[in-house]
Amino acid sequence: MSVFLVGAGPGDPGLITVRGLELIRSCDAIVHDALVSPELVAEAPGDALVVPREGMGQEHVNELLVELGQAGLEVVRLKGGDPFVFGRGAEEALALAEAGLAFEVVPGVSSIAAVPASALVPVTHRGVADAVTIASGRGADGSEPDYDALVAGGGTIVLFMALARLARVADGLVCAGLDPGTPAAVVSRGTLPDQQSATAPLDSIAEAADGLPSPALLVVGDVVAVGEKLRAPATPVVGAAA
Amino acid sequence: MSVFLVGAGPGDPGLITVRGLELIRSCDAIVHDALVSPELVAEAPGDALVVPREGMGQEHVNELLVELGQAGLEVVRLKGGDPFVFGRGAEEALALAEAGLAFEVVPGVSSIAAVPASALVPVTHRGVADAVTIASGRGADGSEPDYDALVAGGGTIVLFMALARLARVADGLVCAGLDPGTPAAVVSRGTLPDQQSATAPLDSIAEAADGLPSPALLVVGDVVAVGEKLRAPATPVVGAAA
Repeated sequence: MSVFLVGAGPGDPGLITVRGLELIRSCDAIVHDALVSPELVAEAPGDALVVPREGMGQEHVNELLVELGQAGLEVVRLKGGDPFVFGRGAEEALALAEAGLAFEVVPGVSSIAAVPASALVPVTHRGVADAVTIASGRGADGSEPDYDALVAGGGTIVLFMALARLARVADGLVCAGLDPGTPAAVVSRGTLPDQQSATAPLDSIAEAADGLPSPALLVVGDVVAVGEKLRAPATPVVGAAA
Repeated sequence: MSVFLVGAGPGDPGLITVRGLELIRSCDAIVHDALVSPELVAEAPGDALVVPREGMGQEHVNELLVELGQAGLEVVRLKGGDPFVFGRGAEEALALAEAGLAFEVVPGVSSIAAVPASALVPVTHRGVADAVTIASGRGADGSEPDYDALVAGGGTIVLFMALARLARVADGLVCAGLDPGTPAAVVSRGTLPDQQSATAPLDSIAEAADGLPSPALLVVGDVVAVGEKLRAPATPVVGAAA
């Protein structure tokens, strides 16, 4: 009778919410992103309809959710990270609202902070950064981020989907006025067992991160140096599943 | 043998992570913020040491965590939202790292997106906002946010702790160049059963939100208008506990 837009979290299946997992375990149908953990999808009841979203356009996903909802099913739309943070969840919600269907947004742990945290980088830190700007390294139309605006924001910069054009993004930020020596980190597959990260000054981060697999996130700012201090003394395990 | 910095999520106890709840259920000691749900604290074993953080300075909390860790206990430090997003979690992590103690960061659902989502406001939306800047409405020293930087960022603006000085913050944003008619929302006690929100153009949001209780979050940007469309047709329940 309802469609639940559920955030699966950043990758580690232990980072879904208790409420999200409960909903998966009792749903009639689950429509899931390619990047969500297969372990979470496997928590759906054996007779649930399981639909991978891969290869479907956004319009198609919206229509599918409306159809499943109209059929009276309890539907979980399982999305990576948080549905309302760069997740296009609101587009799906709008389609459901327009069709007059009840829906619920169940927030998830967003990659924007959990992935930096998995490399022990806080996105804010007292005396270091008291604001953070989050943007995509690649617009829906393939466009570049607004580097001037990002730099003018003055806080930590976190960019999704910047891996494929790291050198250009770093150049763009430097041209917009950021110090080429600003600490930067790329965190690849954060919170997953095979996570890796690279840190370097902004003007050499592209080289340092060469070969890291996606998905990855770029963090730029002095908070990266706080992370260095945290990584130094012990070898903590971060965000790992039990 | 370890200290876990665990994010409790934005308020609704169902929004803690599965991993976070597991750790609470098996800990020897729990040190918790005032704002985290009592239901989560009650999940700790009956013989666990329970220490409310209320009234303790940050230095005191850091020392306490080090002492409990050195005593060989499994310690959960349960923090509102996400430990590494405006949560001063990195300060606690630094104290633990300096003492040579193992620690783990277990991210949580941050209020920055979950609280707007609880009022059906996405912080980004295709064609509306492709970046979001998050800052505190009140600096550690009581200072005001850098309004020029916030406005220059060009995306959605999300401000914590702005409730007590809403009129000043709105003025500050307008003086920095933001259109006084920009849609704004204040979401009070988001994800909790008694949540409330007010929406209005920026220049009258202080009036519209008068009397709403803290904690509350201010969201400024055209995404608030997307929320209006989502709220209109049905009466969805959002982020509510089962």
